Amino acid sequence: MRCFLRWFIISTIKFGAISPISSLLLSSQQNTRSLFLNTALSLRGGEEKTNPSSTATMSENESHQGLNGMDLIIDGWFHERGELWPGQAMSLEVKRVIHHGRTKFQDILIFESTKHGNVMVLDGVIQVTERDEFSYQEMIAHIPLFSHPNPEKVLVIGGGDGGVLREIAKHPKVKEIVICEIDAGVVEYSKKYLPSLAKGYDDPRVTVHIMDGAKFMDDNQNRFDVIITDSSDPIGPASVLFETPFYNAMHLSLRDGGIVCTQGECMWLHVDLIRPLVDSISRIYSTVEYAYTTIPTYPSGQIGFIIASKRQGSCKDPVRQPTLEQQKTMNYYTSDIHKASFVLPAFANRAIFGKEK
Amino acid sequence: MRCFLRWFIISTIKFGAISPISSLLLSSQQNTRSLFLNTALSLRGGEEKTNPSSTATMSENESHQGLNGMDLIIDGWFHERGELWPGQAMSLEVKRVIHHGRTKFQDILIFESTKHGNVMVLDGVIQVTERDEFSYQEMIAHIPLFSHPNPEKVLVIGGGDGGVLREIAKHPKVKEIVICEIDAGVVEYSKKYLPSLAKGYDDPRVTVHIMDGAKFMDDNQNRFDVIITDSSDPIGPASVLFETPFYNAMHLSLRDGGIVCTQGECMWLHVDLIRPLVDSISRIYSTVEYAYTTIPTYPSGQIGFIIASKRQGSCKDPVRQPTLEQQKTMNYYTSDIHKASFVLPAFANRAIFGKEK
Repeated sequence: MRCFLRWFIISTIKFGAISPISSLLLSSQQNTRSLFLNTALSLRGGEEKTNPSSTATMSENESHQGLNGMDLIIDGWFHERGELWPGQAMSLEVKRVIHHGRTKFQDILIFESTKHGNVMVLDGVIQVTERDEFSYQEMIAHIPLFSHPNPEKVLVIGGGDGGVLREIAKHPKVKEIVICEIDAGVVEYSKKYLPSLAKGYDDPRVTVHIMDGAKFMDDNQNRFDVIITDSSDPIGPASVLFETPFYNAMHLSLRDGGIVCTQGECMWLHVDLIRPLVDSISRIYSTVEYAYTTIPTYPSGQIGFIIASKRQGSCKDPVRQPTLEQQKTMNYYTSDIHKASFVLPAFANRAIFGKEK
Repeated sequence: MRCFLRWFIISTIKFGAISPISSLLLSSQQNTRSLFLNTALSLRGGEEKTNPSSTATMSENESHQGLNGMDLIIDGWFHERGELWPGQAMSLEVKRVIHHGRTKFQDILIFESTKHGNVMVLDGVIQVTERDEFSYQEMIAHIPLFSHPNPEKVLVIGGGDGGVLREIAKHPKVKEIVICEIDAGVVEYSKKYLPSLAKGYDDPRVTVHIMDGAKFMDDNQNRFDVIITDSSDPIGPASVLFETPFYNAMHLSLRDGGIVCTQGECMWLHVDLIRPLVDSISRIYSTVEYAYTTIPTYPSGQIGFIIASKRQGSCKDPVRQPTLEQQKTMNYYTSDIHKASFVLPAFANRAIFGKEK
């Protein structure tokens, strides 16, 4: 699952059309929401109260209104159009709607598609299809885990569908898996309708906290070897998890040698926004790198990851390899694709790292 | 540009809905048309006359009727739905229609999009957008060219938009560039409305033949160092270019040490069809390999290439590198992405090559 800047979409719609400039600059993931908000605020005149340097906390009480997923089903097709990927849209054919409603935090739609299995949509944005979710879950989990020599304690922030847990559970070295997911509704409906992902919760090493991940980290410093941020948390308040203070909080919650892996935007859509984020995090972490995976049902067909380490070297070369048995359980990740996923096209290398190679 | 099995779509529509089985098996490129036809014929009872072993020739006289591009513009968006990528669709927002009509071979629509520059659509299928075409053109051209120590003579079959010519022209070692494009209309309208691609025709080393590429090769054996097949040829008759006899013809037209690079389907959509094609070609060529590039406006966001060599080794590692000046003209290709593009996700490795790595 990835989580989008739903609040921003709505506020944009509510407050009027955004300018072409801001439209081009928009990014699709929460971890740059502060950038969008700042851009949007400067363009809109600052209707919104936000303080990127404030302590990261999430609340269900702040008002927001996500897109209604049912409104996006027209003539039997779900149409994912958003200001974050202007001028393009992905559509999936709907076989039947399984569930639609609101959790405490967001609009949730689950439908059976004709060719992509069950699909979960939050506030109008495709989060998971059973057909291709494995590429995202495997890569966001195994890149940091196989980059760490002995990942015993792993924290997942967001990821309520359970898919990342499922992948982490394939690692026998891992002794403890903690997940902080703020929206109990996502967990509940994933267990009902996305069992191939939610089976990740079945592993006895998993502890579930329905709470603010930042708060959890404040109380658990110097504890984890790997932190994976795969937020399913909604809208406005959760965005603070993806600002510099949150990266500070992750850094404090890591043990030495620890690694974080977070969503890194799509290089085809938001490459101009990835660079300032990478630059900002580089002041905190020893290494900050960018990898990507192909995934047809995310906008433009790929999504990236930011991989950063605490007093450790590059994560481009895995330090361990899957056993043959582990490899048989994986449909995307291999040691070779781990290395290849850090190799970016020329345009992305220039825009993110300012270099030709 | 890539070219789809438009004739098959139409005949399918004409002869009635295809079964779910054939629908799942359908592939999107012409080079496996024979597989589809054979599948479709066996399912439909064989209305169609086809002889995959016949000599490869193309004709404008065979009847076909492509999708009308204008019919696919609804509410200001162009919707690319096709039986070759069932259950999913890409849409692009239209700013204005620039041209619509028929060439001798196909329906041609050129529109200005809101965010992707000018877009060329043939028989209802997106061939080129100015925003992302560079990834396809650079990779289909530079992978074979940088895999060859001294590519002096290069043949392009199809590729009428000129984008591949533009990339080949960046190689000073190349002395002769021959293009065989069957549809003069594609050349004409690309020169008018896609000048950033069609500037490839300006290079003095380029010779243009408006003719059947297979026939040209029959008359030019043992001549070329690199052959790139990027067909813009239409429907039924052109499909023979992508059957085993055509791969034989390319092999005969190559000099020793020569390399062909053709479209290789999308691994996310048609992986079950790539393997028999690779197997078939492996009987002819010394090496047959598969690479891919990301490209948001092709179905599922990626497209592959089949790279095969005549009495030469693997093309996975380039034997030459772009100079700094060459590299500055490229937005996707680098020596590193050349190597990385051959590294496939686990599922694709298994399906195409039957192995874990």
